Amino acid sequence: MQRYPYPQLKPPAFSWDRSSAPEEPKVNEWIQTLDPGSIEKVDWPNYHAAILGVPLSRSSISASAASENPDAMRRAWKYFTTYNLDHEEDLLEMKVVDLGDVRQHVTDIEVCHTNIKEAMVSMRTHHPEVFPLIMGGDHSITAMLVKGWKAVHPDERIGILQLDTHFDLRDLADNGPSNGTPIRNLIESRVIKGEDVHNIGLHGFFNARSLKAYADEAGVSYTTMRQARKKGIDTTINEALAQLSQKVDTIYFTVDMDVLDSSYGPGVPASTPGGMRNDELFEAVYLAGRCPKVKAMDMVCLDPYKDRGEMTTKSAVHTMLSFLTGLKQREME
Amino acid sequence: MQRYPYPQLKPPAFSWDRSSAPEEPKVNEWIQTLDPGSIEKVDWPNYHAAILGVPLSRSSISASAASENPDAMRRAWKYFTTYNLDHEEDLLEMKVVDLGDVRQHVTDIEVCHTNIKEAMVSMRTHHPEVFPLIMGGDHSITAMLVKGWKAVHPDERIGILQLDTHFDLRDLADNGPSNGTPIRNLIESRVIKGEDVHNIGLHGFFNARSLKAYADEAGVSYTTMRQARKKGIDTTINEALAQLSQKVDTIYFTVDMDVLDSSYGPGVPASTPGGMRNDELFEAVYLAGRCPKVKAMDMVCLDPYKDRGEMTTKSAVHTMLSFLTGLKQREME
Amino acid sequence: MQRYPYPQLKPPAFSWDRSSAPEEPKVNEWIQTLDPGSIEKVDWPNYHAAILGVPLSRSSISASAASENPDAMRRAWKYFTTYNLDHEEDLLEMKVVDLGDVRQHVTDIEVCHTNIKEAMVSMRTHHPEVFPLIMGGDHSITAMLVKGWKAVHPDERIGILQLDTHFDLRDLADNGPSNGTPIRNLIESRVIKGEDVHNIGLHGFFNARSLKAYADEAGVSYTTMRQARKKGIDTTINEALAQLSQKVDTIYFTVDMDVLDSSYGPGVPASTPGGMRNDELFEAVYLAGRCPKVKAMDMVCLDPYKDRGEMTTKSAVHTMLSFLTGLKQREME
Amino acid sequence: MQRYPYPQLKPPAFSWDRSSAPEEPKVNEWIQTLDPGSIEKVDWPNYHAAILGVPLSRSSISASAASENPDAMRRAWKYFTTYNLDHEEDLLEMKVVDLGDVRQHVTDIEVCHTNIKEAMVSMRTHHPEVFPLIMGGDHSITAMLVKGWKAVHPDERIGILQLDTHFDLRDLADNGPSNGTPIRNLIESRVIKGEDVHNIGLHGFFNARSLKAYADEAGVSYTTMRQARKKGIDTTINEALAQLSQKVDTIYFTVDMDVLDSSYGPGVPASTPGGMRNDELFEAVYLAGRCPKVKAMDMVCLDPYKDRGEMTTKSAVHTMLSFLTGLKQREME
Amino acid sequence: MQRYPYPQLKPPAFSWDRSSAPEEPKVNEWIQTLDPGSIEKVDWPNYHAAILGVPLSRSSISASAASENPDAMRRAWKYFTTYNLDHEEDLLEMKVVDLGDVRQHVTDIEVCHTNIKEAMVSMRTHHPEVFPLIMGGDHSITAMLVKGWKAVHPDERIGILQLDTHFDLRDLADNGPSNGTPIRNLIESRVIKGEDVHNIGLHGFFNARSLKAYADEAGVSYTTMRQARKKGIDTTINEALAQLSQKVDTIYFTVDMDVLDSSYGPGVPASTPGGMRNDELFEAVYLAGRCPKVKAMDMVCLDPYKDRGEMTTKSAVHTMLSFLTGLKQREME
Amino acid sequence: MQRYPYPQLKPPAFSWDRSSAPEEPKVNEWIQTLDPGSIEKVDWPNYHAAILGVPLSRSSISASAASENPDAMRRAWKYFTTYNLDHEEDLLEMKVVDLGDVRQHVTDIEVCHTNIKEAMVSMRTHHPEVFPLIMGGDHSITAMLVKGWKAVHPDERIGILQLDTHFDLRDLADNGPSNGTPIRNLIESRVIKGEDVHNIGLHGFFNARSLKAYADEAGVSYTTMRQARKKGIDTTINEALAQLSQKVDTIYFTVDMDVLDSSYGPGVPASTPGGMRNDELFEAVYLAGRCPKVKAMDMVCLDPYKDRGEMTTKSAVHTMLSFLTGLKQREME
Repeated sequence: MQRYPYPQLKPPAFSWDRSSAPEEPKVNEWIQTLDPGSIEKVDWPNYHAAILGVPLSRSSISASAASENPDAMRRAWKYFTTYNLDHEEDLLEMKVVDLGDVRQHVTDIEVCHTNIKEAMVSMRTHHPEVFPLIMGGDHSITAMLVKGWKAVHPDERIGILQLDTHFDLRDLADNGPSNGTPIRNLIESRVIKGEDVHNIGLHGFFNARSLKAYADEAGVSYTTMRQARKKGIDTTINEALAQLSQKVDTIYFTVDMDVLDSSYGPGVPASTPGGMRNDELFEAVYLAGRCPKVKAMDMVCLDPYKDRGEMTTKSAVHTMLSFLTGLKQREME
Repeated sequence: MQRYPYPQLKPPAFSWDRSSAPEEPKVNEWIQTLDPGSIEKVDWPNYHAAILGVPLSRSSISASAASENPDAMRRAWKYFTTYNLDHEEDLLEMKVVDLGDVRQHVTDIEVCHTNIKEAMVSMRTHHPEVFPLIMGGDHSITAMLVKGWKAVHPDERIGILQLDTHFDLRDLADNGPSNGTPIRNLIESRVIKGEDVHNIGLHGFFNARSLKAYADEAGVSYTTMRQARKKGIDTTINEALAQLSQKVDTIYFTVDMDVLDSSYGPGVPASTPGGMRNDELFEAVYLAGRCPKVKAMDMVCLDPYKDRGEMTTKSAVHTMLSFLTGLKQREME
Repeated sequence: MQRYPYPQLKPPAFSWDRSSAPEEPKVNEWIQTLDPGSIEKVDWPNYHAAILGVPLSRSSISASAASENPDAMRRAWKYFTTYNLDHEEDLLEMKVVDLGDVRQHVTDIEVCHTNIKEAMVSMRTHHPEVFPLIMGGDHSITAMLVKGWKAVHPDERIGILQLDTHFDLRDLADNGPSNGTPIRNLIESRVIKGEDVHNIGLHGFFNARSLKAYADEAGVSYTTMRQARKKGIDTTINEALAQLSQKVDTIYFTVDMDVLDSSYGPGVPASTPGGMRNDELFEAVYLAGRCPKVKAMDMVCLDPYKDRGEMTTKSAVHTMLSFLTGLKQREME
Repeated sequence: MQRYPYPQLKPPAFSWDRSSAPEEPKVNEWIQTLDPGSIEKVDWPNYHAAILGVPLSRSSISASAASENPDAMRRAWKYFTTYNLDHEEDLLEMKVVDLGDVRQHVTDIEVCHTNIKEAMVSMRTHHPEVFPLIMGGDHSITAMLVKGWKAVHPDERIGILQLDTHFDLRDLADNGPSNGTPIRNLIESRVIKGEDVHNIGLHGFFNARSLKAYADEAGVSYTTMRQARKKGIDTTINEALAQLSQKVDTIYFTVDMDVLDSSYGPGVPASTPGGMRNDELFEAVYLAGRCPKVKAMDMVCLDPYKDRGEMTTKSAVHTMLSFLTGLKQREME
Repeated sequence: MQRYPYPQLKPPAFSWDRSSAPEEPKVNEWIQTLDPGSIEKVDWPNYHAAILGVPLSRSSISASAASENPDAMRRAWKYFTTYNLDHEEDLLEMKVVDLGDVRQHVTDIEVCHTNIKEAMVSMRTHHPEVFPLIMGGDHSITAMLVKGWKAVHPDERIGILQLDTHFDLRDLADNGPSNGTPIRNLIESRVIKGEDVHNIGLHGFFNARSLKAYADEAGVSYTTMRQARKKGIDTTINEALAQLSQKVDTIYFTVDMDVLDSSYGPGVPASTPGGMRNDELFEAVYLAGRCPKVKAMDMVCLDPYKDRGEMTTKSAVHTMLSFLTGLKQREME
Repeated sequence: MQRYPYPQLKPPAFSWDRSSAPEEPKVNEWIQTLDPGSIEKVDWPNYHAAILGVPLSRSSISASAASENPDAMRRAWKYFTTYNLDHEEDLLEMKVVDLGDVRQHVTDIEVCHTNIKEAMVSMRTHHPEVFPLIMGGDHSITAMLVKGWKAVHPDERIGILQLDTHFDLRDLADNGPSNGTPIRNLIESRVIKGEDVHNIGLHGFFNARSLKAYADEAGVSYTTMRQARKKGIDTTINEALAQLSQKVDTIYFTVDMDVLDSSYGPGVPASTPGGMRNDELFEAVYLAGRCPKVKAMDMVCLDPYKDRGEMTTKSAVHTMLSFLTGLKQREME
């Protein structure tokens, strides 16, 4: 018996009643939010994926507002329906929860990194059946997240599939645990082996020769953007997934949004010409989503302050949704 | 007995627990939102003001996205604390509720206008003790809101204090109930008398001579921006309030954000050079807030798509908060 | 015997003498304008196409300034010569007239829609030999234009070829005759059959599952962007034209500029990643122009206020000119 | 007996019938355009002012698109009514004609400059009763226009009132007849005397000490922005006009739009902080318009490509209209 | 005996020969750069001021690229001559050196802060006769720079004159040594007394009530923007300087560029409406430069990535040059 | 024995010590700058290429700030390493020198053009073994540079390979030696033969039919963008190079950056839809770099003031580096 005196009003968007099933469900209506007051009642096993924001970019070599990306992506969810017309899949049939953001310290980056690692430890410990999907933050967080995984699964062999314009193999002594070093960090701390890393999307003049030498020495595999286009992006990604799947127990999939050409991805700290197109990226992540060995995914280095009209942010949300489409086909079919 | 597995997380911003009293309360944390499920329990008499969004700009003569303003202002609340240092007043001591938005029809503007009028009727009928504060929308809504007021208070003499670059006295036959005609609409429908309107901020070449002639004939008062600067904006506004207060029962206060000079207010459909500065506007609305006869207020014609870096949106929020500072001094002191 | 005292002057651009044949004719010099004073002397049968602006976007679901597009396109004509180097065709050999804009009402959308329908009725009645080429406006106008066609040609079976990111099959009860509903409007008012609609360019997460279900039930055909790229855009369009041509008398060709990827078409109310490229769009419309059954064309949903450096507007003008190239080859060769 | 088949159409804006008197006349409808075919029938003595565009900015020291300003200003006329509410003057009572643009050479700046000088010669020779009002172009044109005036009126003593951030007294040997040298050019070619120049608006660190020394030696007067604010902009301008009026026959009034502070005038090749506000500029030019000795006026150095949302262009149009308001009061009252 | 084969070339700007004395010296030609190879030959006592860049903004609460400001300001020096026309002072007569930037660590903010403090220690130790002028960086650096001063001059009583929209008195426990806490940091570490701080420019809703309470308890003085405008900015600043000068040995002068109104200073992480104008700021810092007790100065929190057309950066350079004008009058006259 | 008192400082970027070999050499650290004081000691034969800036765009038909491109490209060098990962070539093994800019006159374009021609004469005379690589400026400079080449090598048959949206064959009588005429200028002054010109990238409606007729008559070859895409950009370029190599002694390679589609190249005076992609351009210039007959190269018509986030400037630098990659493989392998 409603006595609301305003039949002509609708409440503010942020208190939208999610229980109603609209005709055209949008992603912001579908993804659930944890109610802090009833966390103990959550039925974790029924969730397919949990989204975690990591608002850290103090650790970026270039000035970056990638810390604003998790909220920017959340704000852009409303532009997307849950239905993928290309693959005729409705994500509404999956259950996905937004866990919120990892707490960050204002001036102590080490504390931030510890919190990030611990967040992954908690996720893997408390509900290992839920797929972790992380919205960064800069690329430094990947090292922490993989370390968190390793801490819970010490016997697993972990591989990395990386879409990136850069190797991220810079020297830790010079650059600290920043966004230039996560892969080297993982190799040198023996969390992963160099031979279990495959990078797709490198191109042009954006990696020093010394890094290519390091990659070769460490056994890191890579396919340049130019090679991937000649071979076909789908063949490239499928081959990389197949090779890694033979070797490792878990593939951690990391997408640095700077892999996009600057015409498609202006919103990254250092956008570059010669990179990937949107359609190539969406195809690649869809295929990765289908691979059973891919067990966690992050998207990093998107700076919404540099974006134009939310176009890169929308590409990132589409990337996440394309990945989830693959994940749904893997898990539910 | 909390079992939340993520001590290192904070939940997404939109589910923020408002009961906690932070050290530095922000406007978004202070303004309350109606819970549709418990509307019957609301203790209306304790509220000082109710904020209503009117997302209508289909009725604008120039193309406008002023429909996006209510949400844009809400998003910008987080940039402001509740404490006004200039006047040493903390708005936290007031209770203000955000009622959400008036429902709009996609293609029938008349339905939209009826809903807006009815929203004011509901507010005045159900809790007349709460001050209505409206975030437009284009200026056409002012006519509907005042008509709603009049419907509930048929015996009141209503005056208008208007901050505007334009008279808004265009011919209804040519322009319909659009953002060019609200004041004429009210005069010609005999809801108000021309002599009970005072416009401050007119300037330059933005009103046809025929409108000035109409204003003179209808007895509309006005002070141009140039006159107001010579006399002092505070004297100007106080004199206008005093004159109106002697004549009318209720002053409806309407602020067209296009009154700002284009350097301060780029985010209006047709920004103009020669207008008001931010400090002048904030002083004016603060003084209006203190006047006991001012009983409703709207802010209109802000198009966030034209804004730069949210600067006009922030000016609008500051305008609302400066007004509330005056309202608090009137009501609580 | 000229006594003009200023040999060193050239008159303002908008009074340019069109009779002079410059070496490098531009589109703005070629397209003729009706002289209201001598309309009765127009030799209609000699015209190949008539351009009509429809400055309506109040009927758009999202806030849109597509009403400004006809003038934006006209202003951009000066950037284009009349000569298509790709196809070695000079449009100068065609006669094309700009009829101006359909009159719109400020606050009554139904009046606007009636005017649009009547404009098509007038065109088909008074000079049916001239090809109608419409610059919208939002997509709601397509329903009105096709209804106008049907009113004059009640026995024709009309098909639709649509380049679009969306189905435009939303429910009329909820959305009115807006830009989300034109195709459904035409189907449900029995002006066209669902099976006579073919949509090319759908992609990603921008259509609800319920709309796909409606499309299937109504028999609407479509080729997604992903399928079109695999098959080739030229094969896709030619097959769709061939199939429609077998069934219908008239193909109405509608191009929603939001079919472009956001990197190519930032100037639409809701640009999306994953869409068409410029070269694909120009090839598609050229081929449509060549098809004898295509008898009218519109371009909609371009919002010049959202554009960057007129880039989407230029794409729209190029779209129009590429279409006219095909039309010329069809009509004059 | 009209047989126009489209009652629902309005013709394209650029063929608007100017004879109809609308309720709210806009500046673009009021300013007349010369019809090249009937130039001999023009009744020159009835015109109060003639507007001339000078689309030259190849002669600018910094890269500039001031050549685009005349058309940018023309396009912005539509935003202004003819009625000045501040002074209750309707410009509609004046007759003003737009003569179009001075022809420019693509690669020979000397030819451009000769054409500009000759345009002024023609104007002064053929209809000396019409006030010349020039839309530049960069500041180099002022030297040519004043030389043209001098060629027709060799016995007149000409003074300059200049609103500018710069002296424009750079050395011709280094800089040629560019936008850095027009005043020195006029002094050194003995067209004017240094003592007959008064510059208002200089400020900050934008003039070399050597130029200040040259100004002092040449007897050039100036009032800095800081001094003008202390004294009052109206007093400053009136004193300068009074002093010049005592000495010279003709005051040529030149407004470099870079006199505006960068917050008000972003659209100049090198905008600077610390300059004039819109309201100060409009008051200054209004007062200059009233002075009987002011006989020609130009506005220069506005680069519409650098502008934001046409805000500086609108300031320039307002500047022109404020000046015409003063001119009207001088001539018609 | 030059054999350079290119008489028609000029070398790249960054290898410009500074020994040549141009007619119109620009600031970038005047400020000297240390040659690392001949540092021992520097004649320190002859320098009046040394400029130091502090490219740190990882310690900013909001995402900020203030780290890019030192280079942005250096790039903008070329827009300014050395001559201040308002005060008829040529800075060329002073000797100023650019020492470069303090080295920063990528991921350890504590190391960054130690380096900053040590840089001030080195300056005060090695050449105490040279005035330190610092280009930040975010406001956290002020605490480090003052601590460095205190380390070398332990017996001095140090006061702070602050132009700022904020108190910067947030709790260190919550916010660390970030840009929200520098003044509190200095008070609580007993480097300064609260009563020796005077803040000018506070306004509106940008400081929590708790911070105002802290300020009052700690004895911090302040003049709001509104009070300063009523009293006159020059009187305000002179009174504050006089009061501080009576109490302290050294006034450290810190200018947070966010004190500017958002129309003048878009390039700060959180620009606000209601702030200072350019002309007010330039007058204030000029007067501070003249005060003998002012012995160091910094400019902070300018984020060039948020700037529009370098306008805030130019305001910052003008701020530095206006201050140096006062310093010159104090030191050389 | 260093006595530098600031171990924690690094000197300003522009005095960077180039002798140190960093781990990740950037292009700005690798390209050498001529020291005017020791020009006689330069070991020219050891240089592979010399970069020359030509800051001229007064000769552009459309308003252009291409004069700012040389410095814009220099500023963007820092974003690129010297290592080309696609081809596994390190440019560090080449020696490249930046000669600075050709001196330009402010108002006399003919003097500018003479200087440009003479610069090429000097280069070819003094050190013919060094490859000239020119950063324009507008396209008018190409005619001057080729004329300079011809003056030194009168007996050589010179061909042109041109990547361009335009023929650049406009009539010199109308357009002067501007950016619309360089190829016609060279043909009509008999420096080259029409049959020795091959243009790749023409498309759409951007060339008048008369220019196509002129091209055919003069024997100019061309491949449209559409044809090149069907044939493959690598095949296209290789065939053109092979055909020209058979006929001529020297191929002058000119890249008009307007060949890029407007989504990739917004920073040109008149960007167009339908042009080249970044990956196509980089492949094309790499292949041109490998061709032994290609002996000089320029990049023109990039206007950094129109660019967005330096994206076109970065494409230009990448173009230069991709070309140098080919040049290195030709010269050093």
